[in-house]
Amino acid sequence: MNGQFKEIPGSIVAPRGFLVSGVFCDIKRLGTGKGSDKGQKRDLGLIVSEVPAAVAGMFTTNQVCAAPVKICIERVKKGIAQAIVVNSGNANACTGRQGLQDAREMTAAVAAAYDHRKLKSKVPSADRRRKISAEHVLVGSTGRIGIALPMANVRAGINEAVTLLDHSPVSASQTAEAIMTSDTRPKQIAVEVQLGGQTVRVGGICKGAGMIQPGMSATGKHPAATPLHATMLCFITTDAAIGADTLQAALQEAVAQSFNRITVDGDMSTNDTVLVLANGLAGNRAFGVRSSQFGVFQTALNHVCLGLAKMIVRDGEGVHRVVTVCVNGAKSFTDADAAARAVANSPLVKTSWHGGDPNWGRIMDALGYSPARVVEDKVDIGYSTPGSRKILWSLKRGQPTAATFKQLCAAVAPKEFELHVNLNLGKAGAVIYAADLTEAYVDFNKGDVSDPNSLGG
Amino acid sequence: MNGQFKEIPGSIVAPRGFLVSGVFCDIKRLGTGKGSDKGQKRDLGLIVSEVPAAVAGMFTTNQVCAAPVKICIERVKKGIAQAIVVNSGNANACTGRQGLQDAREMTAAVAAAYDHRKLKSKVPSADRRRKISAEHVLVGSTGRIGIALPMANVRAGINEAVTLLDHSPVSASQTAEAIMTSDTRPKQIAVEVQLGGQTVRVGGICKGAGMIQPGMSATGKHPAATPLHATMLCFITTDAAIGADTLQAALQEAVAQSFNRITVDGDMSTNDTVLVLANGLAGNRAFGVRSSQFGVFQTALNHVCLGLAKMIVRDGEGVHRVVTVCVNGAKSFTDADAAARAVANSPLVKTSWHGGDPNWGRIMDALGYSPARVVEDKVDIGYSTPGSRKILWSLKRGQPTAATFKQLCAAVAPKEFELHVNLNLGKAGAVIYAADLTEAYVDFNKGDVSDPNSLGG
Repeated sequence: MNGQFKEIPGSIVAPRGFLVSGVFCDIKRLGTGKGSDKGQKRDLGLIVSEVPAAVAGMFTTNQVCAAPVKICIERVKKGIAQAIVVNSGNANACTGRQGLQDAREMTAAVAAAYDHRKLKSKVPSADRRRKISAEHVLVGSTGRIGIALPMANVRAGINEAVTLLDHSPVSASQTAEAIMTSDTRPKQIAVEVQLGGQTVRVGGICKGAGMIQPGMSATGKHPAATPLHATMLCFITTDAAIGADTLQAALQEAVAQSFNRITVDGDMSTNDTVLVLANGLAGNRAFGVRSSQFGVFQTALNHVCLGLAKMIVRDGEGVHRVVTVCVNGAKSFTDADAAARAVANSPLVKTSWHGGDPNWGRIMDALGYSPARVVEDKVDIGYSTPGSRKILWSLKRGQPTAATFKQLCAAVAPKEFELHVNLNLGKAGAVIYAADLTEAYVDFNKGDVSDPNSLGG
Repeated sequence: MNGQFKEIPGSIVAPRGFLVSGVFCDIKRLGTGKGSDKGQKRDLGLIVSEVPAAVAGMFTTNQVCAAPVKICIERVKKGIAQAIVVNSGNANACTGRQGLQDAREMTAAVAAAYDHRKLKSKVPSADRRRKISAEHVLVGSTGRIGIALPMANVRAGINEAVTLLDHSPVSASQTAEAIMTSDTRPKQIAVEVQLGGQTVRVGGICKGAGMIQPGMSATGKHPAATPLHATMLCFITTDAAIGADTLQAALQEAVAQSFNRITVDGDMSTNDTVLVLANGLAGNRAFGVRSSQFGVFQTALNHVCLGLAKMIVRDGEGVHRVVTVCVNGAKSFTDADAAARAVANSPLVKTSWHGGDPNWGRIMDALGYSPARVVEDKVDIGYSTPGSRKILWSLKRGQPTAATFKQLCAAVAPKEFELHVNLNLGKAGAVIYAADLTEAYVDFNKGDVSDPNSLGG
């Protein structure tokens, strides 16, 4: 129990009324035939709410954005959705009109297949709608850019996924596996919270390991002064009763504090997507943004998003060390954010983290070339272990402290540590969850052109 | 002969009246004693003009800038200088007041030692001034940030360097070696050009391998809309007679087309410096920016700067492939530059270059998140070999061409190739000389904390 919520098992099926599945339909390796290799990781996932749900979404602000993102931006605006179909192995990005047609066909295929299936739901039959409108199906893709989807495989996968839909945590894990690309493990979380006397649950799955520095907005357009820069996909389910606008407000805040604050490699993807379906089956009374219940719901949603976001950084491609970069004392949030991102994305800083080298000179260098206002002889730089309030300062007001090289090495030796920068110029702060840069990242991403199927996104 | 100039041997002593040297004085490895290891790379270089010279300079725009940069910015403004002393192994950056004092002391030590030396010059004695004012000595440093210079070693090194000053190309190579850090080879060039009936020579040396994305200006302040972002040091000598203001104008243009257009890792250094000394001993008549001779001189200086800049990229830390990123069809130069830098600094694009993977999807992704205006279905992406006009297009107007994966792999297989992006939105273009990202870069920069002397800048 963390204040008002507690973590629970069950992932995206912890909330009532969600049916999920994950299958292998051979999307990445073309021409080998569906199901030809049963040992392959699943690559198509499906999430269905038994009743139409309020929906909210956040999307990449990359000007080159994938077909499924374009479809979702339009559909989320309507505020209602009932299902999400998602594939890995192919981003359906830079695929032109064919890509848009394929993405729409995926949603239509879900609706058509669902129409035929025999429901095994535990929801009272009065709440069920046996049919799903194709317009209420959302779609996500992740994988290599610029290759058309193998639609025969995708269609077969969707049909199988619909027949396998159920409420079990095993299926939720399979859905989480289906959206993985270079991830080494599925990422899942769920929490439970009391809202107006009712127990409300929020569950989420996500993926992401490389091309990670999301900068998402509700419309895919850059909000002014919003930091930019994975494919990361995140799908959240909740049985809360909440209006779509209220849900969108909560999601924007939760994403601003989580996914939009992580970086693995500084590359913002064409496909970043976060979607939430809220089906109301918890039976609470819907609430607005000014209600105290909103704060409770927000806290729970923040926890789900931040938990998932940190899982992405920890499982980032080749990542050995995770570093929380905390910049304070900036003149503005924009400055704090820019300074934190300059440090978090500097190849020289990141390689020093990999080496366990407390090279504050490289940190000063990155701060100095960031767009943020920085005055050399005002800067403090220090380290702490997560959860500890004790900071070992290596630099105070631009001057090296008495901390020894050995002490500083010890501070940056753990798998996770916090880097503190105080610019001492103002009151604004920002946090970025960052990772080191390793030989393993390079090796993974250079790929092997002699085996094109091995190539990543 | 390239139009109006030709390359010649002789490096920085090709122009008349320059005396140079390079010595080892053990600046990086403290406490082992000067000269304790004669096998070490030289680490202190000296360039002296036998007569006072016009001077021009360009400096890092990093807000955290090293003590020697601060000294040079002030002294270059006066337009006259006669000597440059430079050390490697220690950047004298983030060293506070002690750093400024040490940098000034280096210049004073050169003046004092020179005063005592016995001149062996071939310049007519009427032109000689046996004394150099300390104010006419410039200083440069490169190496690890945040450590005070070992001044006893530096003083001894300066004294030795002054006694060894001579006109020989061997000494010029030793000076070029003395400024190297992670460079694997010295970088030198010289050209000869006819100006007003006289033969004028321009020679240069430079260093730089990591922390390379210079964004220099004359004042160390960001010029509006100038791309930002090595330690690179470059020292140019010429026997041209040219006023300091005219020389500065020529240098700004030459740097804008060369050093400010390269990137190895996107990290802009605290120490980037380009200095030119023009001592007038060629005997040409001084010219202004509107004279036709200015164009001739500019062309020669451009060739020296671009030649040296490309040597830096080719010798970049761990670099296997050099890629010239040419963006055209942008709405503005700012857009073209931003788009080219986004591609050139994307870890995913750079690792794909390392792997020989023609992954245009990652290029589109980087273009899309750049601040430049990009419209997906207008973008062309193609490849050529340097010097060839034949471009193999992989993408035209956002659509894959008929080029096969094998053909594209062949296009990106050479050690050097050109990447062409046409945004088809306007008429502006920009070129960035870039490099791949390799395991060797990571391995080198993670260092070895068990041997702090091994740690880089």
